[in-house]
Amino acid sequence: MTERGVPGFRFAGVACGMKPQTAAYGGRALDLALIVSDAPCAAAGVFTQNRFPAAPVLYDKQALQANPAAMRAVVINAGNANACTGEQGLADAAAMAALVEAALGLPAGSALVMSTGVIGLPLPVDKVEAGIRAVAGLARSETGQGSEGRMLSAKATTTTDTKPKLAARQVGGASLLGMAKGAAMIHPNMATMLAVVVTDAALEPAALHAMLRRAADRSFNAISVDGDTSTNDTVLALANGLAGPVDPAAFEAALTELCTDLAQQIVRDAEGASKFVTVRVTGATSEASARQVAQTIATSLLVKTAVYGGDPNWGLVLAAAGRSGIELDPACAALWFAGDGGAEYQVVSAGAPLAYDEAEAARIFTCRDLLIHLHLGAGAAEAMVWTSDLTHDYVSLNAHYRT
Amino acid sequence: MTERGVPGFRFAGVACGMKPQTAAYGGRALDLALIVSDAPCAAAGVFTQNRFPAAPVLYDKQALQANPAAMRAVVINAGNANACTGEQGLADAAAMAALVEAALGLPAGSALVMSTGVIGLPLPVDKVEAGIRAVAGLARSETGQGSEGRMLSAKATTTTDTKPKLAARQVGGASLLGMAKGAAMIHPNMATMLAVVVTDAALEPAALHAMLRRAADRSFNAISVDGDTSTNDTVLALANGLAGPVDPAAFEAALTELCTDLAQQIVRDAEGASKFVTVRVTGATSEASARQVAQTIATSLLVKTAVYGGDPNWGLVLAAAGRSGIELDPACAALWFAGDGGAEYQVVSAGAPLAYDEAEAARIFTCRDLLIHLHLGAGAAEAMVWTSDLTHDYVSLNAHYRT
Repeated sequence: MTERGVPGFRFAGVACGMKPQTAAYGGRALDLALIVSDAPCAAAGVFTQNRFPAAPVLYDKQALQANPAAMRAVVINAGNANACTGEQGLADAAAMAALVEAALGLPAGSALVMSTGVIGLPLPVDKVEAGIRAVAGLARSETGQGSEGRMLSAKATTTTDTKPKLAARQVGGASLLGMAKGAAMIHPNMATMLAVVVTDAALEPAALHAMLRRAADRSFNAISVDGDTSTNDTVLALANGLAGPVDPAAFEAALTELCTDLAQQIVRDAEGASKFVTVRVTGATSEASARQVAQTIATSLLVKTAVYGGDPNWGLVLAAAGRSGIELDPACAALWFAGDGGAEYQVVSAGAPLAYDEAEAARIFTCRDLLIHLHLGAGAAEAMVWTSDLTHDYVSLNAHYRT
Repeated sequence: MTERGVPGFRFAGVACGMKPQTAAYGGRALDLALIVSDAPCAAAGVFTQNRFPAAPVLYDKQALQANPAAMRAVVINAGNANACTGEQGLADAAAMAALVEAALGLPAGSALVMSTGVIGLPLPVDKVEAGIRAVAGLARSETGQGSEGRMLSAKATTTTDTKPKLAARQVGGASLLGMAKGAAMIHPNMATMLAVVVTDAALEPAALHAMLRRAADRSFNAISVDGDTSTNDTVLALANGLAGPVDPAAFEAALTELCTDLAQQIVRDAEGASKFVTVRVTGATSEASARQVAQTIATSLLVKTAVYGGDPNWGLVLAAAGRSGIELDPACAALWFAGDGGAEYQVVSAGAPLAYDEAEAARIFTCRDLLIHLHLGAGAAEAMVWTSDLTHDYVSLNAHYRT
């Protein structure tokens, strides 16, 4: 957690009383984060596809359309999702942005908003208002420029995450810094995935948006904890240009790496999970079809439960691939397992099981870090998806969290 | 289990040593069932959409295409799925049909085959051969015409079902009898759903196929235990015509009822489940879109786990509907819960929560028989899907069944 900052960006996080003050949140319930840029930013967002988008999602989409080249701030609250809150919710999201603009003396329409937490409760605007005054002051102070500010802001966006998630990359003379809060599973209606990436590279909004969309598809959209997408999922990127232009391909590669790093941190921190599973599908006719097959395997309850139990049940992997909706030739399918970075061990060839050593396959399935590699034999495209196992703890945590 | 037989059909079941002789199977491991018609039958099948279809699925599709109007028998084995078995598997399925035809003196191509059990092991044809001789003899005896034969055959198709599943209906002077084996969850690679419906109504094969397809969509395709479809799922219908013609609409209604009865028996017998959940979606623009929304809710891990925990978490239901891929207007959504056949209790109106009584909602969620009713406010179409909850037992049974 010693990630370097990015020139021109300040960070802060405070407690405003929205998040319950429980041990689950580490006692000190930071719940309001602020990111401010000294210079106007090109900005882009990728949002949940859920048809019940939360108010901040609707607000940000509009704000980015109106002002994609001169954003200045992002404010994030944790504890209340401002989702399923109707017209009042939209007004509250707009008020939250306006409060930030007023507190920092920024132009109207230059602040974006993110929320995560309980669905269906009105946003406590009075608490948010007091919190914004405090967090704006802290961001302007020396704390806002240093690593403490970054850590406070990362912590203030978390809900049931057990740790804040930060990642950094360099590309040429420019820096990228990302923070994310994850789909921890203890409180399903707080399972929103939020991420913000800031950079001092100079980029056009349209180019930034295209790169963010592709990077998100290969990272945040390639993780699956339980298949349920939230009303609030949002990834934002802000580029203040202070480092000047960068090579676009190198920047996109760094952005994709950074987002993948954050996405994997989210899966590894998924509460109730005991294993980290990489599903790799190769030999597909397109990346999209490879991803669809990988997603179907990664979200199969039977596969995830077998992984938890340490059962190398290759038949379940093939059966899940078979129902993914992608055309497959069973006679071309091959399957390997690998554990903790070890060599791949083949169990299926030409769609039928090899005479493999069941004990070796079972040993691989005891590893905490498991690779399931399915080759379709139909083309040269591939995709990876990361997931966790389905455990007794997952059921316990989700079954009884409100009652 | 006193369902009447259907004139002209004989049933039998025997043990041929393919299924493990354990308590899980009730000690006496019946594993080979036979259904024989004295007269040639119009026949139709609805099969798994899985791209790794098992050998019997491939065999039956071909057989039905070649001889849809003069089928005479269905043979079913439990304990070995004959799936992922390559060319040898196809030859074994054909051999199994030929053995039945030889044992009963039937024309070539007049027997259909179903298999359920472990994936990836070659079919033990010697055991099947001995079993077919025995079951053919039993079917021809007096036992084959009575209720004992029907019960033996229903038991012989089960794997981890805790009870055989039979249902009967009358329509005019004709009878329908159905048997099914379910997607019990203890052994996921035995989780195949198989069903056979026989009738003495006189029907053309094409009409029978169309009605079976629609009935299956509203029954077997409307149940979800864990979202994983099997390589072997098959529903067959045989009509021997002895009772003469029937009113097509009345017959289809009876067939749909019968299939729904069997499908609900499967969900109620899902091992590891503690609750039976009906998801009803109304106010959709089409039955297909209503079903898609209902399926997404019914397969949501978060919803299923909340049901297990007795948590009336309406936000999860809306969030699942929102990611179903169907266009929705959140402002039109309404949601009700009901338990054990009681009155519906509204918790959401116009996409936002009502000031409902949390204690009453929680009481409803303690019921074993739960209704989740979502109204979309977009049209007049509706659909129902039946599912079970996600429990600790589900995880235990599926995690550790081979290890």
